[in-house]
Amino acid sequence: MSKPNISKSTGESAKPQEVVKKPVRASPPNHIFIGKKPIMSYALSSLIQLAQSDEVVLKARGMVISRAVDVAQIITKKLGNNAYEVKSIKIDTEKVGTGENVRNVSTIEITIGRK
Amino acid sequence: MSKPNISKSTGESAKPQEVVKKPVRASPPNHIFIGKKPIMSYALSSLIQLAQSDEVVLKARGMVISRAVDVAQIITKKLGNNAYEVKSIKIDTEKVGTGENVRNVSTIEITIGRK
Repeated sequence: MSKPNISKSTGESAKPQEVVKKPVRASPPNHIFIGKKPIMSYALSSLIQLAQSDEVVLKARGMVISRAVDVAQIITKKLGNNAYEVKSIKIDTEKVGTGENVRNVSTIEITIGRK
Repeated sequence: MSKPNISKSTGESAKPQEVVKKPVRASPPNHIFIGKKPIMSYALSSLIQLAQSDEVVLKARGMVISRAVDVAQIITKKLGNNAYEVKSIKIDTEKVGTGENVRNVSTIEITIGRK
C-alpha cells in the first residue's frame, strides 16, 4: 500500500469513472418532492420541469399528501393550458425514523404527463 | 291522528312505495367517506363492507386525503390478510361553499377490491 498511486499513474484514468458514479442522485430531476412551501411554487416548478421532460412525478408523504393532489389539480386544470393530465397514481408505505421511533408513513406518487 | 291505522289497514300497502322512494342514498353503501374519526374505525368498516361487496371506495377531500391513503394502506398491508389491493385511484376537484365562499377542494377516490 506504499504509494501505489504514483507508480500506477496510467491507472489514474480509471478514477474519473468512480467520480462519475458517486453523484448518483437519489431522484431524477423530474421528481418533485412536496413539502411545506406554497402550493403554487410546486406547481410552477412542475410546469418548468414538464417543459423539459415528458413527465413529472409529484412525491409526498404523510400529511402533505393532500397538497400533492392540490398541485396535480392545479397543473391539470388551472395552469398548463389543459395540455397535461394525471397519468398514474401510486400509494405506498415507507418506514420513517430509527430505533424505537420507527413508524409507517403513507406516500403518494402522482405522475403527470402531456395528454 | 285518532287511530287511522286501524281503519285504513288496506290502504297502508300504498304507503311503503313512498317510503322506499324517499331514502335515495346519495352514495352506495360501499362508499366510505373519510373524516376525522380514528383511522382504524374507517379501516374496520371498510373490511366489513368488503366482506359483503367486491369493492369499497374510500372518498376524502381536502386535508383528510392523506388519511384516506392511510386507511387504504392499513387495509391492504396490515389487516385483510393480504387479500385486498388498491384497484384504482382517482383525483378530482370539487367546488365547496356558496356565494363568495366558493373554493376548490381536491378529492380522492381509492377503490379497493379483492386480489
